[in-house]
Amino acid sequence: MAKNKPLVGAAVIGQSGGPSAVINASAYGVIKTALESECITKVYGAHHGIVGILNDQLMIMDEEDPKELERLLHTPSSALGSCRYKIADPEADDTDYKRILEIFQKYNIRYFFYNGGNDSMDTCNKVNRYMQKVGYECRVIGVPKTIDNDLFGTDHCPGFASAAKYIATSFMEVSRDSKVYDKGMITIVECMGRHAGWLTAAAVLASEKGDGPDLIYLPEVDFSMEDFLDDVIRVYNGQGSCLVAVSEGIHYADGTFVSEAQTSGTDGFGHAQLGGLAARLAGIVKAATGAKVRGIELSLLQRCAAHCASKTDVEEAFNSGKVAVESAVAGETGKMVGFRCERKNGYVCHYELFDLEKVANYEKKVPLEWITSDNAFVTPAFVDYCTPLIEGETTPEFEDGLPRFAKLKKVFAK
Amino acid sequence: MAKNKPLVGAAVIGQSGGPSAVINASAYGVIKTALESECITKVYGAHHGIVGILNDQLMIMDEEDPKELERLLHTPSSALGSCRYKIADPEADDTDYKRILEIFQKYNIRYFFYNGGNDSMDTCNKVNRYMQKVGYECRVIGVPKTIDNDLFGTDHCPGFASAAKYIATSFMEVSRDSKVYDKGMITIVECMGRHAGWLTAAAVLASEKGDGPDLIYLPEVDFSMEDFLDDVIRVYNGQGSCLVAVSEGIHYADGTFVSEAQTSGTDGFGHAQLGGLAARLAGIVKAATGAKVRGIELSLLQRCAAHCASKTDVEEAFNSGKVAVESAVAGETGKMVGFRCERKNGYVCHYELFDLEKVANYEKKVPLEWITSDNAFVTPAFVDYCTPLIEGETTPEFEDGLPRFAKLKKVFAK
Repeated sequence: MAKNKPLVGAAVIGQSGGPSAVINASAYGVIKTALESECITKVYGAHHGIVGILNDQLMIMDEEDPKELERLLHTPSSALGSCRYKIADPEADDTDYKRILEIFQKYNIRYFFYNGGNDSMDTCNKVNRYMQKVGYECRVIGVPKTIDNDLFGTDHCPGFASAAKYIATSFMEVSRDSKVYDKGMITIVECMGRHAGWLTAAAVLASEKGDGPDLIYLPEVDFSMEDFLDDVIRVYNGQGSCLVAVSEGIHYADGTFVSEAQTSGTDGFGHAQLGGLAARLAGIVKAATGAKVRGIELSLLQRCAAHCASKTDVEEAFNSGKVAVESAVAGETGKMVGFRCERKNGYVCHYELFDLEKVANYEKKVPLEWITSDNAFVTPAFVDYCTPLIEGETTPEFEDGLPRFAKLKKVFAK
Repeated sequence: MAKNKPLVGAAVIGQSGGPSAVINASAYGVIKTALESECITKVYGAHHGIVGILNDQLMIMDEEDPKELERLLHTPSSALGSCRYKIADPEADDTDYKRILEIFQKYNIRYFFYNGGNDSMDTCNKVNRYMQKVGYECRVIGVPKTIDNDLFGTDHCPGFASAAKYIATSFMEVSRDSKVYDKGMITIVECMGRHAGWLTAAAVLASEKGDGPDLIYLPEVDFSMEDFLDDVIRVYNGQGSCLVAVSEGIHYADGTFVSEAQTSGTDGFGHAQLGGLAARLAGIVKAATGAKVRGIELSLLQRCAAHCASKTDVEEAFNSGKVAVESAVAGETGKMVGFRCERKNGYVCHYELFDLEKVANYEKKVPLEWITSDNAFVTPAFVDYCTPLIEGETTPEFEDGLPRFAKLKKVFAK
C-alpha cells in the first residue's frame, strides 16, 4: 500500500548475519540514495546491526568521505559491523522493541533498512509490525544478502553470485593443479551451505569449462557413503583423477551430518575429528583407495572474495539498496527487495518487492529436479540458472598490489 | 663461456615439481622465443617433464594455435604436465641419461629447457654434465619456478609473487570477515612452505594495509606452543580478535613438525589428526581460550590462483623463459636464469645467469634478521623486499564469467 505523503526524517541501515563480497555494495546503494534523498534528513549506520540500535551506537554516514563510501562497492564483509542477535517475538517479550522505538524517536528515524538473510528479514518484519502496532510511522525495507541463496521469493540473493564465481574459478584452478602429475589424485573440496546446496552446485560452472568437479554432492538429498565411495573409485579408475565438490551440509538418511557423525558400527567410517568435512572424507577415501587424496575447505575465503566478485552481483546488490530507499520514500514498508529474472532471450533482472511476512524464515533449496538421479551431479537447468549471475568482472582499486578497501571514519552520534 | 657458433636443432621444454600461477608464463616465454628463433628447428614440450622424455612423449608446440599458446600467460598449473621424478646420479646409474641421449639424438634436440624448482635445477645440472661428458652438444638452461621462493642466487623466484599476492589479498578479505561481529574470533591461516617461510611472511603485506595477521610464525625459527598461546591470548584479550599466519613447516626445537607431533607427555597438545596444521592449532587454541576459533588452510588455492596473479610476476616469468632461450642460442649452457633486483630508487629487475652447480639443491630461507626477536612477526625489511614483487594486476581473458585457460591440442611426435 503505497502512500504519497512524503515522510521526513532520518534513516538507519544495519547489516546482519554472515558477510558476503557484496553486502557493502548494498549498503552503499542504501547510503548513497538516502544521502541524496530530499526527505531523508540524516543517514545513520547501526554498529553491528540491531545490536547497535539497542546499544545506541549509530554512525553518522553524512560525515563520511563520499570517495571512501564509494569504495564500499568493492569492500567485502560488513563494513558497519554485523551481529547474530535473534530478536524475541514482540508478543512474548517487547523489551527490545520498546528500546528500538526509543532510539528511533531519539533520532527521529523514519526509515529502517536491514541488510541480511533469513533471520534479518524476520527482524525486519517484526520491527515493522511493532511500529505499526504502536502507531510510530516508520518505513521498513529488507535488503537481501546471503551467499547461501536461500531466501524465498527472489530469483537469487545478492552475494550468492560472487561466491559462486569464486568457487567456480577456484575449482578451475584446483582442477588444473590436481591433474598436473603423471599420477593423478583425488581432491575433495568443501563448500558452504548447511541446508541449501546452491554454492556447491555452482562448481558445475567450472565443469562446463572442462576444469570442474566430476562429482557434486548437495544437502538437498541423502548422502550414502557407500555410493560416494563407488562413485569416486569409478571416476578415479576411469580417468586417473577425481575432483569432488561437497556441501558442508551433506547428511545421511537419518539426518546426521556427515561432518558430525561419530564412530559408528553401521558405516564404520567414524574418525576422530579436528578438520572439517573435506578432511574427514579425504581420510575415508584414502583408506578405501590408497590413492593420493587431498581435502580442501574453502571456508571464509568463499564468502569474502571481493577480488573475484561478479560484476552482475555488485550491480544488483547496489541496486537492491537503491530500490529499497526509493520504495520506502515512495511509501512502501514491510517489504524485501527481490529479483524476478528472465533468461530466455538474454538475462534481464527486474527489481520487485516481496512481502516480509512471506519471506521471513523460509529456506529456499535447490530444486530436486536440478539434481541428477544418481544424486552426484546437477543438471543443465542449474547451469542455465546460474551462468548469467556470475557474468562480468569488477575493477576494484588497487594500492601497492593489494585491494584498497573502504576505511570508514565511524563518527558516532552522541 | 659463450660460444658464437650457431647451434641448429630442436628444443624441448619440460615442467617439473609443484605448479604455480605463472609457470606457464615461463613456458610460453620459452616456447614463443624458441618458435621465433632461426636456429631452433622444432619446439617440443615434454609430457610430464623428464618422465615424458624418458617415455618418448613429446608434444609438438609448432602444431599449437599461437592464440592458445598466448593464453598460457594466464593459465595456472603446468600445462605440459609435471612430475616428481628424481633422477639418479649419473655416476651411480646412467640408465636414464643414456635414454635421454637416445631421445635427444632421435629428435636432434640441441636445446633443453627445464622449468622448475630445486630438484629440477639438479636434473638440469646432471643432464648438462652428462651431455658434456659424452660429447653431445646440447645447451641446457634452467628456468626457475617455485612459489616457495627458496632457490639460491636469484633475488626471488617466478611464482612466489603471485602466491604472495593471493595470500596477502586473502588475508585482507579474511581479516574483514573474521572481525565483523561484535564478539570477535581467533582465526589461524596456514600457508605453504615446509622449510622456508617466504609465503607465510607475505601475509604481512596485508598487515601493512591494516587488514592482516597480528602474528606470523615461520619455519626458520623454533616454534614454542607455550609462547604461541601466550601471544594469541594477549592479542585476543587486547583487541577482541586475533588473526594468525602460520607456515605448514613450523616445528619444535627438536625438529618435530607441529603438524605431525604425536600425543606427547611433554607438551600435552597432541591430538588425533585428520585436518592439517591450521585445524590442529585451532583445536588447541579453542581448548585453551574457549573463544570462537577457526582454522583455514590455503592449500592448493594459493599456488594456482592465476586469477589473482601479480603482473610483475607474470612478466618476469615470461622474460625468464625468453632469456633462457636467447642465452642458449647465444651459446650458454649449465645455467639458470635468475634475477638481481634494485629497490633503492624504484624497482628494477635485471636478468642474469647463475651456475646450475651452485643453485642445485640449496634452499634459501627467510633471513633470520627479517624475523622479529619474539619470533612472531617479520620486520619492515621483508615488506620492502616483497612489496614491489606483487605490484600490478593482470587482465586475463574471461568467458561466461570464468577465466579462459589455454587448451592445448597436444599433438605427440611419432
